[in-house]
Amino acid sequence: MALSHEMKIYGGIKLYTGTASPELALKVAEYLGETLCERDIIEFPNENLFVKLRTSVRGQDVYVIQHTAAPVHRNLMELLILLQTLHLDSAARVTAVVPYLCYGRSDKKDQPRVPITARLVADMIESAGADRYMTLDPHSFQVQGFFSIPGDVLNAQYLLITHVNQHLRAQLHDPVVVTVDLGYAKKGRNFAAGIDAPIAFIEKRRLANDAKAQALTIIGDVEDRDVVLVDDEVDTGGSIIQAVNLVKENGARRVYVAFIHPIFSVNAAERLAALPVSEYITTDSVPLSPEKRAVLGDRLTVQSVAPLIGEVIRRAHEGRSVGQLFNE
Amino acid sequence: MALSHEMKIYGGIKLYTGTASPELALKVAEYLGETLCERDIIEFPNENLFVKLRTSVRGQDVYVIQHTAAPVHRNLMELLILLQTLHLDSAARVTAVVPYLCYGRSDKKDQPRVPITARLVADMIESAGADRYMTLDPHSFQVQGFFSIPGDVLNAQYLLITHVNQHLRAQLHDPVVVTVDLGYAKKGRNFAAGIDAPIAFIEKRRLANDAKAQALTIIGDVEDRDVVLVDDEVDTGGSIIQAVNLVKENGARRVYVAFIHPIFSVNAAERLAALPVSEYITTDSVPLSPEKRAVLGDRLTVQSVAPLIGEVIRRAHEGRSVGQLFNE
Amino acid sequence: MALSHEMKIYGGIKLYTGTASPELALKVAEYLGETLCERDIIEFPNENLFVKLRTSVRGQDVYVIQHTAAPVHRNLMELLILLQTLHLDSAARVTAVVPYLCYGRSDKKDQPRVPITARLVADMIESAGADRYMTLDPHSFQVQGFFSIPGDVLNAQYLLITHVNQHLRAQLHDPVVVTVDLGYAKKGRNFAAGIDAPIAFIEKRRLANDAKAQALTIIGDVEDRDVVLVDDEVDTGGSIIQAVNLVKENGARRVYVAFIHPIFSVNAAERLAALPVSEYITTDSVPLSPEKRAVLGDRLTVQSVAPLIGEVIRRAHEGRSVGQLFNE
Amino acid sequence: MALSHEMKIYGGIKLYTGTASPELALKVAEYLGETLCERDIIEFPNENLFVKLRTSVRGQDVYVIQHTAAPVHRNLMELLILLQTLHLDSAARVTAVVPYLCYGRSDKKDQPRVPITARLVADMIESAGADRYMTLDPHSFQVQGFFSIPGDVLNAQYLLITHVNQHLRAQLHDPVVVTVDLGYAKKGRNFAAGIDAPIAFIEKRRLANDAKAQALTIIGDVEDRDVVLVDDEVDTGGSIIQAVNLVKENGARRVYVAFIHPIFSVNAAERLAALPVSEYITTDSVPLSPEKRAVLGDRLTVQSVAPLIGEVIRRAHEGRSVGQLFNE
Amino acid sequence: MALSHEMKIYGGIKLYTGTASPELALKVAEYLGETLCERDIIEFPNENLFVKLRTSVRGQDVYVIQHTAAPVHRNLMELLILLQTLHLDSAARVTAVVPYLCYGRSDKKDQPRVPITARLVADMIESAGADRYMTLDPHSFQVQGFFSIPGDVLNAQYLLITHVNQHLRAQLHDPVVVTVDLGYAKKGRNFAAGIDAPIAFIEKRRLANDAKAQALTIIGDVEDRDVVLVDDEVDTGGSIIQAVNLVKENGARRVYVAFIHPIFSVNAAERLAALPVSEYITTDSVPLSPEKRAVLGDRLTVQSVAPLIGEVIRRAHEGRSVGQLFNE
Amino acid sequence: MALSHEMKIYGGIKLYTGTASPELALKVAEYLGETLCERDIIEFPNENLFVKLRTSVRGQDVYVIQHTAAPVHRNLMELLILLQTLHLDSAARVTAVVPYLCYGRSDKKDQPRVPITARLVADMIESAGADRYMTLDPHSFQVQGFFSIPGDVLNAQYLLITHVNQHLRAQLHDPVVVTVDLGYAKKGRNFAAGIDAPIAFIEKRRLANDAKAQALTIIGDVEDRDVVLVDDEVDTGGSIIQAVNLVKENGARRVYVAFIHPIFSVNAAERLAALPVSEYITTDSVPLSPEKRAVLGDRLTVQSVAPLIGEVIRRAHEGRSVGQLFNE
Repeated sequence: MALSHEMKIYGGIKLYTGTASPELALKVAEYLGETLCERDIIEFPNENLFVKLRTSVRGQDVYVIQHTAAPVHRNLMELLILLQTLHLDSAARVTAVVPYLCYGRSDKKDQPRVPITARLVADMIESAGADRYMTLDPHSFQVQGFFSIPGDVLNAQYLLITHVNQHLRAQLHDPVVVTVDLGYAKKGRNFAAGIDAPIAFIEKRRLANDAKAQALTIIGDVEDRDVVLVDDEVDTGGSIIQAVNLVKENGARRVYVAFIHPIFSVNAAERLAALPVSEYITTDSVPLSPEKRAVLGDRLTVQSVAPLIGEVIRRAHEGRSVGQLFNE
Repeated sequence: MALSHEMKIYGGIKLYTGTASPELALKVAEYLGETLCERDIIEFPNENLFVKLRTSVRGQDVYVIQHTAAPVHRNLMELLILLQTLHLDSAARVTAVVPYLCYGRSDKKDQPRVPITARLVADMIESAGADRYMTLDPHSFQVQGFFSIPGDVLNAQYLLITHVNQHLRAQLHDPVVVTVDLGYAKKGRNFAAGIDAPIAFIEKRRLANDAKAQALTIIGDVEDRDVVLVDDEVDTGGSIIQAVNLVKENGARRVYVAFIHPIFSVNAAERLAALPVSEYITTDSVPLSPEKRAVLGDRLTVQSVAPLIGEVIRRAHEGRSVGQLFNE
Repeated sequence: MALSHEMKIYGGIKLYTGTASPELALKVAEYLGETLCERDIIEFPNENLFVKLRTSVRGQDVYVIQHTAAPVHRNLMELLILLQTLHLDSAARVTAVVPYLCYGRSDKKDQPRVPITARLVADMIESAGADRYMTLDPHSFQVQGFFSIPGDVLNAQYLLITHVNQHLRAQLHDPVVVTVDLGYAKKGRNFAAGIDAPIAFIEKRRLANDAKAQALTIIGDVEDRDVVLVDDEVDTGGSIIQAVNLVKENGARRVYVAFIHPIFSVNAAERLAALPVSEYITTDSVPLSPEKRAVLGDRLTVQSVAPLIGEVIRRAHEGRSVGQLFNE
Repeated sequence: MALSHEMKIYGGIKLYTGTASPELALKVAEYLGETLCERDIIEFPNENLFVKLRTSVRGQDVYVIQHTAAPVHRNLMELLILLQTLHLDSAARVTAVVPYLCYGRSDKKDQPRVPITARLVADMIESAGADRYMTLDPHSFQVQGFFSIPGDVLNAQYLLITHVNQHLRAQLHDPVVVTVDLGYAKKGRNFAAGIDAPIAFIEKRRLANDAKAQALTIIGDVEDRDVVLVDDEVDTGGSIIQAVNLVKENGARRVYVAFIHPIFSVNAAERLAALPVSEYITTDSVPLSPEKRAVLGDRLTVQSVAPLIGEVIRRAHEGRSVGQLFNE
Repeated sequence: MALSHEMKIYGGIKLYTGTASPELALKVAEYLGETLCERDIIEFPNENLFVKLRTSVRGQDVYVIQHTAAPVHRNLMELLILLQTLHLDSAARVTAVVPYLCYGRSDKKDQPRVPITARLVADMIESAGADRYMTLDPHSFQVQGFFSIPGDVLNAQYLLITHVNQHLRAQLHDPVVVTVDLGYAKKGRNFAAGIDAPIAFIEKRRLANDAKAQALTIIGDVEDRDVVLVDDEVDTGGSIIQAVNLVKENGARRVYVAFIHPIFSVNAAERLAALPVSEYITTDSVPLSPEKRAVLGDRLTVQSVAPLIGEVIRRAHEGRSVGQLFNE
Repeated sequence: MALSHEMKIYGGIKLYTGTASPELALKVAEYLGETLCERDIIEFPNENLFVKLRTSVRGQDVYVIQHTAAPVHRNLMELLILLQTLHLDSAARVTAVVPYLCYGRSDKKDQPRVPITARLVADMIESAGADRYMTLDPHSFQVQGFFSIPGDVLNAQYLLITHVNQHLRAQLHDPVVVTVDLGYAKKGRNFAAGIDAPIAFIEKRRLANDAKAQALTIIGDVEDRDVVLVDDEVDTGGSIIQAVNLVKENGARRVYVAFIHPIFSVNAAERLAALPVSEYITTDSVPLSPEKRAVLGDRLTVQSVAPLIGEVIRRAHEGRSVGQLFNE
């Protein structure tokens, strides 16, 4: 009997989600023509979580979709418990699909006696029983080296670039891409190349005589230009506010803001709404509540990462190239 | 040069605590004549935690005191980050001292497709960098086998027994020890032996025709006796309320309640306050807020586990027997 | 090519057995319609064992059936050598099927400076090359947390319950289930619920003035009742003898004894034969010699666990739910 | 759907080779009717190597063919990088096929404070991501125990024996097999049995009064006999030169030399060419340059190991017995 | 006996070096007032390396100083063999001191189907037996997360900054720091802050119609300014040549070049000598041959990292803070 | 405070023994001026073993002396349980001292589908908690590579050589050392060099037409010579009997037999007693019963390995060279 090389080497795709990413998981399931597997997730009064799968996953190829933004530690623990439960139920392969991976900025000891929490999180995911992982635009791509299991680290930046090119590019006046800080310089350059625009950077430098004060400088030219501010995530919005003000002070015309992960801590949505920004372009890697969406109204554009995640799951399951998907 | 066998084989004792157990850690430090080491613990707006040690622990013998009751997942993550930070700073030995270990009841698969979260937690503590662990009265002592690192699992029950014997025993009328459920039968027997009283049990049995209804029965004799209800922890107080009512219905005289860990979720304190219980005897393995203490007032007795933990740390550090401490 | 999700994801089932469980293995093979794979097992004069497989298991789904009751250490080593041999021959998956797992009572440090041998045994099985394990009614179900590999821990108690319900229940006079000690309290309660009878317990308490003397007490009511004594295993029979005498002294009518594992060390069979017990109900998890069976004669009922093990192997192999088998 | 047990349990065979063994890999591919997968291997000016696979290996059964003779460390690193790349690309199974494994002679501490580099190499191959390994005639077969992953250690000696029997045996005059040193005594005996000849040994003994001087003795009889000198590899040829001279001095007639691995360091080919040896019989486990081959001309016979490796890959892939291949 | 907390917790410092860094190791030893331990390192004709320690390191605190620049793979293997030899000789603690860590740029999968070789190297160092590691200015500081053992990652940039401030700063005309590419943007900013100068960047962008052509742009202002070009290492010098030409074309005055690691592949020294650069400032993390030094003559300034490494070894050995050394 | 480098880096030496090697352990203790630590070892009727240490080993440097000859599996398990108990009691370092390591001959797959049990045993010792191991003359020295922990593999052959040189050499007539099979060829050569005698070998070759028949040949010269037969162990004595007969048939004069490990299975002592052998020279690595000693009477010489083991323990404990002990 000659089986073709494209045979499904594991059992069927089984999709699970915790309580963090229900909408995204549903969209991924729809993309794949699958349904989400049923499971009970209970939180006891003492905050301990409990998981029970409704059906067996023995020999199946399982994917757990769960972001780890707020509530960070509960979401992380729920993810780990799901992974262990699936592993102990003799799944053939378990993939942790984490659209937003927490603690990404704690990725090195840049001062003495601090943790590398991103490595800790990677170790937790591995030891809980994940055979593979998948994530989107981590803070630094070196986080791949924190795992010893294989993974697919997807780049959702091109979704933002595509949106700019299809809907905004033609009307932009002498556009320039500006990164909110120097850590995003290389990725900002990729964005700028993607929309065929020059690049500029905002430099933050600590003032010598005051530990907390920072001087902000623009390296590059923004005067009389439309500015596309780019970053990987927006948390409280503080950096964006500084950046918008700075480019405006330096003569920028219209300002657009593009970023992958809408963390939106505290009152970030309200603070962003008050800025002279024409459009905020982001993804649904982390869900935004209807309230937060309403605050920004039409100025908010959300590109869904569900087709991207769905397609990669399909290819991973079928043993086909994921790299081809991006035309490399 | 002949060093005595009692030499300190590691550097000095260094005591750390997270944000969960500050008071207990302080008492342990006082017992040892040490001060707590300074460290910064910051929670960013996106809930990510950050730790920085103020001084180096290179080559030192470090103990991190942190319970993992509510907020469970934050406390657990803080513990893990502290452990990793200390490990990466080249401590000679790191011991996780966890007075209350979360997820203790998830210690087996007693139905299909559920997790064994207690093993997951043990793995997390090990992989974060702990060389040893210490805990008090876990739900089942088999949790020791979930760790591959050595540990000291301490039994604080004798603190409760000693209190009963010193302050209550003489005035108890035909006392009987009653366990809240059958899972605590053996430990309840030890308690009963400790105060030289007989034992009885409450049996819960699911009713055949109603999945959620339970029938409660007392096995053993409580009529016209003073009852000491015992359990390892009190969470919402639901089991205690059932038990108090049941023994009262069966003719018990005065009721005392003794348990190691005062979790006191939701409005447990208020519910307990309403019961016809003469005294609640517990420990400070998990801190009780002044408000909760006030609700129970004089009826609450808290035995401190700090001297126990402190003495075990001292002996572990000096390479002396811990078993001797308990006269085995 | 569309493969159904029920496809066999590994090669065929391959069944192996060592020298411990040949009869049980044969029955399992018959249930599955398979034959046992041939292998040579040689013991050299220096007691070293040697294994050679007669045929290759490359890419196959292999199950090794071997209990680890007496000769305990030889049986254990034989199991481990078989596991390693199969692993090194590139089997796709190796499952250790251990109907009786030795050292189950050494599952915690309940006194200082003792081992946790059950964890040691779990580690040995894992490091020898097992990908999964299967066992029946371990002394404590927490042993599942000693493994990091997935496993199926089966509960054979229902075989005993079914026998009682089908053959004895109708004629029992006010039956009560009695556990031989408090460690079996919860499992005894399950048995009692299974035959719809009340429960009672035998409590053993060390006497204060004599380290070796024990006082035995019955908690609950046995007078004028038919008693079903239950335990997980019978070793020398000492506990059973004590228990039978005690319930008889307390007015019990007929006595039945039900237990999973017939270890029957030394002259247990003879000692049990001398007791006023109507029937001994057990399983074939550990083989009983014809001589021992003859001693108990008609009073011995042995329920075979072979169909249970066989069905679980089939489902594990086919990637189907095992939980469903028990109607959960 | 009933799949036969011979189904391919992994995806298709994917063959890779680094820069060390291109010809052998091509022959193996031809034997299997496959083509070598394309990949880029770049060496940067700073000597760092870079690998990129041209196509995806997700879910495939991958074999990397690469010897680790000179340039030893570059070849080894290239192998490891290939293994990691394939592992991280989610291959179903990765097998390192290493026709010649370096550092085989560093397999024990036979003096204090020295390494066991063969174990180090085994660990490197495992930690780089190999799931299995395959090699030919390692210096000691105990190297199998240095790996925890399964492997196929093939014996190519029979290729040499077959050549002798088919082409030389009839014309040999009273042949005797002579091992170059005592470490090869048992394998030499196998060779001698294979061609039905007696065996003799060369013993090297250090002289007491001079650390560097060695006395060579022949144990056994070579006078007036045709001699087949055997060893596992020829490095600089020094031992062979000594051996040829010694047997000639002891009255040997014609001399043949048979060995598995033609390392041929420095000017080994030239030195061997100068010896009174009738024929050198070896394999292509390590490639010989046309220049080196030319030096030995017709006196060099190279048996290809490609069919052997190819057949074992086929059987490993299809889950069939490799042992049968050798009629055991 | 009361030992002070500053006691040496391990045996004495033992310093070893391979063949890569003999001069640097000697300087470190001098700084510490120690001598290098004797060991034999032999390369056999087949390129296999062999190590033998002349004295025992049982219970000692051992440091192996060895860079892994060219010959990269030999140096790496020599390091690993030394680590294993020391581990197997029962050293109390083994620290790999690697002034330059190879494969630093292969730290992530920024395209499909490529390796993360820096992780592979970290795993090799750990599995060879290192308990700790030490390195200088890796390409990305995230490499710390590739290790699970503790390490000291030192920043030698301040040596370069100190040189500029002490010897050049006063005479620089409107200086600007320029990074050779965007990947060094944040570290370049630190350099600029260190000499109190602004920053500019060179952006490389691939041209759309030619895969190999790159367009270079300066972001920021260099006209009529003295330029300090900064990078972490200089390999072939290609990037430096491009950068010098570009800043000159854009009107720069004098040009200085500062970098940590002088790799100087191929004819880098000659190519740099031909550039209009006033001074090259670097360290001795990688040794420069007298010939290469002669080519650049007085224009080359080499700051030794030996005191830095020596002081960190001393503090690591004595259990004192390394962070304090940098005034954090 | 300046501690000398010879300081004891761990706590004191603690010596333990199981039930296998009580006499040897006592001699080692006497050599070291220590006493054996007390521990209880109980065998339950179900054959399960139980260990309890009488005193704590926290922070101590512990050595467990236990051979693993018959009863092999019980001795091995007892060793493992002791190791785990000591590890879990927080010993600073645990060394398994195994004078005779079982399963040494199962050190490779020399045919398909067989185990490598020696690796399995090494893994068991490591995973039970040993930090180091020590053994005497394993069957192949490559077993060192089966462990990843450091170890001291001692060579007791020189004890036998010294005895021959001091008591027999002068009176031997043209002595020749003969190895019982070719696997001992290199070690036999070392023995021969040690007593300054030539070497000869016995070759066993399977007869082509009968799988079980073997032809024995002597390679080398024994006629009219005194023969010293050497091997690593004597099990049933079968090989020795064959060898003695063969050398006698070939004209040998007196015959002596020297071997490290006196396994003496079945009736080996009686069979050896019947041989025309002048003296049997062995060690006490495995204890011989007084009965077995009596059978061989004055012809048996037993050299004790206790001083060797004791001295190595002392040096390992004090961090001094073991290699020096042998003048390397």
